[in-house]
Amino acid sequence: MTTASSVPDPSGLHCLRCGLEVRGFAGCPRCAADGIGANAMPPLADLDGLELAGYPGGPWGWPETLPVSGSPVTLGEGGTPNIRLRTDPAALGDGRAPECGSELWVKYEGGNPTGSHKDRAMAVGVAAAVETGADTVCAASSGNAGAAAAAYAGRAGLRCVVFTTESVPSALAAQIDLLGAEQVRCAGGFPERNAAMAQAVAEHGWYPLTSYSSPSPGGNPYANEGYKSVAYELARDFAGRRIGAVVVPTSRADLLAGIERGFRELAAAGLVSAAPRMIAAEPAGAAPFTAALRHADRAAQERTRVESHPTAAFSLGENSPCWQGLDALWRSGGTAVAVAEKEFLAEQHRLAQQGLLLEASSAVAVSVARRMLRERPEPVVAIGTATGMKGLGPAE
Amino acid sequence: MTTASSVPDPSGLHCLRCGLEVRGFAGCPRCAADGIGANAMPPLADLDGLELAGYPGGPWGWPETLPVSGSPVTLGEGGTPNIRLRTDPAALGDGRAPECGSELWVKYEGGNPTGSHKDRAMAVGVAAAVETGADTVCAASSGNAGAAAAAYAGRAGLRCVVFTTESVPSALAAQIDLLGAEQVRCAGGFPERNAAMAQAVAEHGWYPLTSYSSPSPGGNPYANEGYKSVAYELARDFAGRRIGAVVVPTSRADLLAGIERGFRELAAAGLVSAAPRMIAAEPAGAAPFTAALRHADRAAQERTRVESHPTAAFSLGENSPCWQGLDALWRSGGTAVAVAEKEFLAEQHRLAQQGLLLEASSAVAVSVARRMLRERPEPVVAIGTATGMKGLGPAE
Ligand SMILES: [Zn+2]
Ligand SMILES: [Zn+2]
Repeated sequence: MTTASSVPDPSGLHCLRCGLEVRGFAGCPRCAADGIGANAMPPLADLDGLELAGYPGGPWGWPETLPVSGSPVTLGEGGTPNIRLRTDPAALGDGRAPECGSELWVKYEGGNPTGSHKDRAMAVGVAAAVETGADTVCAASSGNAGAAAAAYAGRAGLRCVVFTTESVPSALAAQIDLLGAEQVRCAGGFPERNAAMAQAVAEHGWYPLTSYSSPSPGGNPYANEGYKSVAYELARDFAGRRIGAVVVPTSRADLLAGIERGFRELAAAGLVSAAPRMIAAEPAGAAPFTAALRHADRAAQERTRVESHPTAAFSLGENSPCWQGLDALWRSGGTAVAVAEKEFLAEQHRLAQQGLLLEASSAVAVSVARRMLRERPEPVVAIGTATGMKGLGPAE
Repeated sequence: MTTASSVPDPSGLHCLRCGLEVRGFAGCPRCAADGIGANAMPPLADLDGLELAGYPGGPWGWPETLPVSGSPVTLGEGGTPNIRLRTDPAALGDGRAPECGSELWVKYEGGNPTGSHKDRAMAVGVAAAVETGADTVCAASSGNAGAAAAAYAGRAGLRCVVFTTESVPSALAAQIDLLGAEQVRCAGGFPERNAAMAQAVAEHGWYPLTSYSSPSPGGNPYANEGYKSVAYELARDFAGRRIGAVVVPTSRADLLAGIERGFRELAAAGLVSAAPRMIAAEPAGAAPFTAALRHADRAAQERTRVESHPTAAFSLGENSPCWQGLDALWRSGGTAVAVAEKEFLAEQHRLAQQGLLLEASSAVAVSVARRMLRERPEPVVAIGTATGMKGLGPAE
């Protein structure tokens, strides 16, 4: 039942780190030989002549900024709200002194069609797959990315195969099933799962919507361009007010790097006066960026390896810092912060009590953002990557 | 632990049916004595001078259209996307002939902060509660309304008590818990639940965010005004194109009536040339509006009683047509359509396979909208009231 089409063969992608022209979706082979997972991306878009006030939001709001030319594949993703959190002592409920006056915002990505920011990427990734003539797409995912891949493939009428592990949360497995994708549950862990997907890409020519090689360079570069829309929306919504920092729950840094690219495009076109610092928020049990930035020189940072432990922020957890993330932190003057399990779970609870039900990994970003308030006078935005509504309990 | 404040005492509310000035939130006492559940609402807003192109979406996008003057209570509700569904035979997958050329759209309310359209109402209802000085709000709900009440009360720093029955889906009970509300599970059914809430409103002066009297007049009139924003958004997004029909999953017709009021305001100000027909979509097992409209005269329609049976569209199910809904159908030249369980469950499955995971009650509206395509050349919009992501399975 598989199609003997050839492996998708994009062109115009260059390694972010060494500039090599790269074909395929496994990142830069030269950097990989050097032990570094470096993604290859299309050139930045030129935003000259575009006006932020007229930007309708979402990846397809400005289709000319995307490296695909076919029809949009959309389920109404993007255009998510910014919600200002209370930072007064009563809201914190722990008798601490009031924090400094800077504003704490959450950009709530849980309102996307499948409940996470991944929809922005999969909308573009599936459109790119359609453009190559693929009839089957695949994704290696423990959750949100698999659900988003399933939904957008279904929207476009493509077959979708999601490679998961046996530890995939049952709610996410159920969501992927309902959305009509096939699931391959791989025994073992992420390496076995990624190997199964790599084999499928090589053998069947299935279009890969996520990362599957090691060291991971980060996700499909076309899909990742969908994340630039987060930056465009923030710049539009803050309407000339400078954002001090954007805090992003980080694993392979696809979202972090995408947002930084978006702000870089905006700054180049004069649409923002300054790009915000990008901050990688990590659970303490899986914090390669935080570990990397402890090293003084970049060569050592690139080669950092950590042990990653199971965390309630189950969608996060890598052993090495994807180079695209380091690049975004370096370029924006940002940093990485690791948060203890207990702290971000308390934050998740506090957010829920204030009306905002987020996945644990989103609370990691809010925890970090709350700390940054003391340092910066400008507003700090945490990306609330996914809803906490999945997995509330059994269906009835 | 309860506060001895007085029962909230709104003014400026008049019965939609008989014009009586009404105090309190139990609808019109004169019509109730006549056996009719008729809501009392504030006057329509005057939209003169407003421009649709500049409407930012959501109930607080045009705060002057709402009968509250205090600070907005918001979690970024509204601004939901319109998604055009495929209607070609391949997408239908059942070999039927292509349907006529009119467009089928879903307005996806599942993207709201707690996953349903109820957020539009509770944002306004909780703001109204704050304005009266209430410190506790309450709601009688088997699910989505309770979750929305909990979230917005938490956002505003109010205590929230949700009256449920023992048949509340566990995922929704879990959501209400996580959002910090207290739950009172009432033995028996809806009558017992409503009686418990009525008693709490009378004894403690808690502010009621939902309907609790019998025959039900429909929900809190301030909250219901939040639904007008659905009409404003549709009118803005269709930008002068006439919408043929808006199909709404209907129980007490709060949403249906609110959308009709919004379109009536738009039409009065010349912002739309014609209001769409409003269509009440009901599960066959609980279809009072469909039964009512089988009667020739309105006096008989008002007094219709039906037996309602358990349905997978668990958020729907009333025994009598709330008068506000009949009024909206009469005014807009609309109708009511009942859908068999098997048909809307198949629709729910088909929508999911195309990327859109909706609650069963939302699929009822899509089923009805699909039938309307054959009758009308103008676009038909089904309101996808709630996400299907709640209750996917146990949390892990
Ligand atoms: Zn390279
Ligand atoms: Zn009356």
